[in-house]
Amino acid sequence: MSQAEFAERGDKKSVEDGDLLMPKFDADGLIAAVVTDVATGDVLMVGYMNAEALKRTIETGEAWYWSRSRQSFWKKGETSGQIQSVQEILTDCDQDALVLKVSVAGNGATCHVGYRSCFYRKIVKAADGSTRLERVEADKVYDPAEVYGKG
Amino acid sequence: MSQAEFAERGDKKSVEDGDLLMPKFDADGLIAAVVTDVATGDVLMVGYMNAEALKRTIETGEAWYWSRSRQSFWKKGETSGQIQSVQEILTDCDQDALVLKVSVAGNGATCHVGYRSCFYRKIVKAADGSTRLERVEADKVYDPAEVYGKG
Repeated sequence: MSQAEFAERGDKKSVEDGDLLMPKFDADGLIAAVVTDVATGDVLMVGYMNAEALKRTIETGEAWYWSRSRQSFWKKGETSGQIQSVQEILTDCDQDALVLKVSVAGNGATCHVGYRSCFYRKIVKAADGSTRLERVEADKVYDPAEVYGKG
Repeated sequence: MSQAEFAERGDKKSVEDGDLLMPKFDADGLIAAVVTDVATGDVLMVGYMNAEALKRTIETGEAWYWSRSRQSFWKKGETSGQIQSVQEILTDCDQDALVLKVSVAGNGATCHVGYRSCFYRKIVKAADGSTRLERVEADKVYDPAEVYGKG
């Protein structure tokens, strides 16, 4: 293999126990990538990669995704400056998910809403079984209107 | 809302900025759930939930998933004893992904291969651009053959 080519999917044992990268892309050609802060371990976002985005990420050391909403490649931080420098990529037993440990450039935030992590709310359950969301990040890192413009 | 009913999807502002849980399920009716160890922050696995699995998880405090391979509900740990006690559930900006912070019962492992985390391998890039996988967990927590039987 050269230039981050992937091996063909093998049998269960080779996928789970082997040392060849044989990612499983779903029906849309995508694999889920969980992005964590290499310093704190906090989950920052979940993105999706197609084979080409994964190759670019491995080759450049900066995270590329496939935007499902825009149906286009997306280099994280290209507009916002929030470039993800990839320190480590893990894969799971059946190689259908990835964990990227990253450090974030620019203002250090990941979420377009302004928070450090996209996971800035937790589910809180009331005594009657109803749920609501509560902030776990008190303050935004930046005001998106100043970066992306209003509206 | 009662008994973990979900709100209907609202506009962008209410999804991103509101306090109502309005999860976005994909075309297969699923939402990705990243499971982390509440003590260490390590990512243990990525599972998928349909609306009913998410409701059961919120109501019982133990993690339920939808198995895409078996097309059935799956209470994690029902066979293995590796029950996930859910300490916190986070959702992201567009509410199409979840983070579950859990403590794991039984032998404390999560992966059916025997490791503590399903993410027991990292991608290593050689000088020529080729990749291979390398263990990040030195030892298995348990021998799956002893739990699930051989073959």
